[in-house]
Amino acid sequence: MIPPPHGGRLVERRLSDSDRTRRESELAVLPTIAPALDQLYDLEKIGIGAYSPLEGFMDAATLTTVVETGRLPNGLPWSLPILLPLRRPEDRATAEGLRPGEEVALVDHHRALRGILHFEERVPFDPVTVARSAFGTIDPSHPNVADLLAGGNLALAGKVDIVAPRATAHGVAELSPRESRDLFRSRGWKDVAAYQCRNPPHTAHEYLQRTTLEREDVDGLFIHPVVGRLKTGDYRPEVIMRAYEALVRAYCANDRVVLSPLTISMRYAGPKAALFLAIVRKNYGCSRYIVGRDQAGVGKFYDPYACHRIFDEFDVGILPLRYEEAFYCRACQSTATAKTCPHPASNRVDTSQTRIRQALKNGGEIPPELLRPEVAEILRQPDVLLKEGDQ
Amino acid sequence: MIPPPHGGRLVERRLSDSDRTRRESELAVLPTIAPALDQLYDLEKIGIGAYSPLEGFMDAATLTTVVETGRLPNGLPWSLPILLPLRRPEDRATAEGLRPGEEVALVDHHRALRGILHFEERVPFDPVTVARSAFGTIDPSHPNVADLLAGGNLALAGKVDIVAPRATAHGVAELSPRESRDLFRSRGWKDVAAYQCRNPPHTAHEYLQRTTLEREDVDGLFIHPVVGRLKTGDYRPEVIMRAYEALVRAYCANDRVVLSPLTISMRYAGPKAALFLAIVRKNYGCSRYIVGRDQAGVGKFYDPYACHRIFDEFDVGILPLRYEEAFYCRACQSTATAKTCPHPASNRVDTSQTRIRQALKNGGEIPPELLRPEVAEILRQPDVLLKEGDQ
Repeated sequence: MIPPPHGGRLVERRLSDSDRTRRESELAVLPTIAPALDQLYDLEKIGIGAYSPLEGFMDAATLTTVVETGRLPNGLPWSLPILLPLRRPEDRATAEGLRPGEEVALVDHHRALRGILHFEERVPFDPVTVARSAFGTIDPSHPNVADLLAGGNLALAGKVDIVAPRATAHGVAELSPRESRDLFRSRGWKDVAAYQCRNPPHTAHEYLQRTTLEREDVDGLFIHPVVGRLKTGDYRPEVIMRAYEALVRAYCANDRVVLSPLTISMRYAGPKAALFLAIVRKNYGCSRYIVGRDQAGVGKFYDPYACHRIFDEFDVGILPLRYEEAFYCRACQSTATAKTCPHPASNRVDTSQTRIRQALKNGGEIPPELLRPEVAEILRQPDVLLKEGDQ
Repeated sequence: MIPPPHGGRLVERRLSDSDRTRRESELAVLPTIAPALDQLYDLEKIGIGAYSPLEGFMDAATLTTVVETGRLPNGLPWSLPILLPLRRPEDRATAEGLRPGEEVALVDHHRALRGILHFEERVPFDPVTVARSAFGTIDPSHPNVADLLAGGNLALAGKVDIVAPRATAHGVAELSPRESRDLFRSRGWKDVAAYQCRNPPHTAHEYLQRTTLEREDVDGLFIHPVVGRLKTGDYRPEVIMRAYEALVRAYCANDRVVLSPLTISMRYAGPKAALFLAIVRKNYGCSRYIVGRDQAGVGKFYDPYACHRIFDEFDVGILPLRYEEAFYCRACQSTATAKTCPHPASNRVDTSQTRIRQALKNGGEIPPELLRPEVAEILRQPDVLLKEGDQ
């Protein structure tokens, strides 16, 4: 069945049109903070309930239990901090004068109002402690750790209200948890499996999706690519979405698949990110969550199957569907995993992103066992990768 | 986990070596019945516990509740009668003089002792009523109905003890429920999925097997072909087993698959047979049961998905894994079902047994998308089909 949101209630905190207009007219006099892009994404996700039961950025007590126990103060599992760190000196200066209960305007880099913070407290924190808990490392070659260490040691806590979510520029509507839940219900789906991804689809990804769709306890598949802030050299968010649209159009049983982007910055926290991303998908109405090998990993920071085991430690109310690494085997003549393929690894077609990107770059042929031609066609276009300064 | 046998306890009723020797020496003076081959198979399955909790052939009270409610007198689901009908006039004559508690020798057509019946009662029954309940039809073009109508209207009830199971001639050891349970345990398997079949494996069958093996709640697969009495024109039991051995050897992750024949006569009872065959596999230690389209159907007698729905009506303590019909789709370039393939049926490669047999007969090429070459090789051999009088 469609599970209740994490904590039982879908958080929805949006300013009404009149409240928004009033705050916009008061912008000159309201204390103003300009969060980084990552935090603007989080702000929006809190407001639409993607992070239910969070109603705002975490206070010190919450940060402590999350860091120390992987749970919110009420015991509910929650694996990653959701903080509003102050990176800019002027924001830290603004913060000094805030009194509890005061309203703070949260603006983007065009100084457009994105939401209101109902200031509760300043949250001094140790980035090293937070990094060690969330990412299991303080190595600054880890991209999120580098961000965290560069982001200062002071955050603001408080509930937020957001202005209506922005339309995304990815060509596909970004559903809110309320919208995805309504859509699943209107299709008569009870059990929906979420597919987490952050790259264009290979046949190995499609294999996990199809294998999941064959389950009798799965009515539909929610393909939900994370397309928030990515790294230079990654595929552009709109390219990832176009590639998925091409896949869904040509190869998916359309009445059983919903595609929508999830605009948040990617947390490469391995197991803790897998758990976090599963909780988020529960909020979108999914009761099943596909976990492949080394989900949300980066480099060699995580045991590739730690992201499987963490679901034994924390019951987050969504059934994990844990899969081993998929590959195309020439002897099987199909995609398989070590659970189904008995042949030596020499039969496997290398499905690494690196190799495929190289072939695409050199104009080489991509075997259809690796990449659907419709997807390859999109990835061959010029200017599909993010360049320095694009975001 | 490995489920307890149906009813809670594994039935095992074998004559000790000394008891067997004594009965064999008394054969000339014991009342003797020569059951048909179907009932000799059932006798053996009762003795090794494949039909737990049954300890013998059904009495009148049990037959009544099974026919009327699909349950044993104690309420446990049980979908098909297990009777010992007397087809031969001399057996009916023998039956007339029996007193409750008397021992009856059950012999095969070589008059070798196969087991002892502890006679309880004569069971007069109406074959039409039984046919209507078990097979949903009294149409004599249904093979089991024809058998039933030709088998008379008197059966014998009583517990049985068997002589040690015969070695089968299929080239593969036939595991008993105790042996399969021990084997699963020794491999550390908790959840084993049973695959029911009665034909050599196509890629469509393999697809369901592989899809099941990818499940995180499945540790192993028990391929358990029914190779008892078959029809003239069917593949010989040993051919079916050789074909499966070839498949397992070349394409299965061996440490996750166990192959063993199940020598019983096939009940083409659609949904009721699916339920019966699932209960039997629970007795062999399986907690999951694969149910494809029109399992255990014949002709057009059953709604192809009635065999799925019956598991909603009766909880038999094994999780059904219900799949739609699988086919090879040229557009998907893989095997799929209507749940995963969006393309028109014109892209599907016809996987019917009829078509494959025709191609094999004519020496035509069999596309590897339909049949693994190693399997096709076996099916191309001469004399692979049962001829009149072979059984």
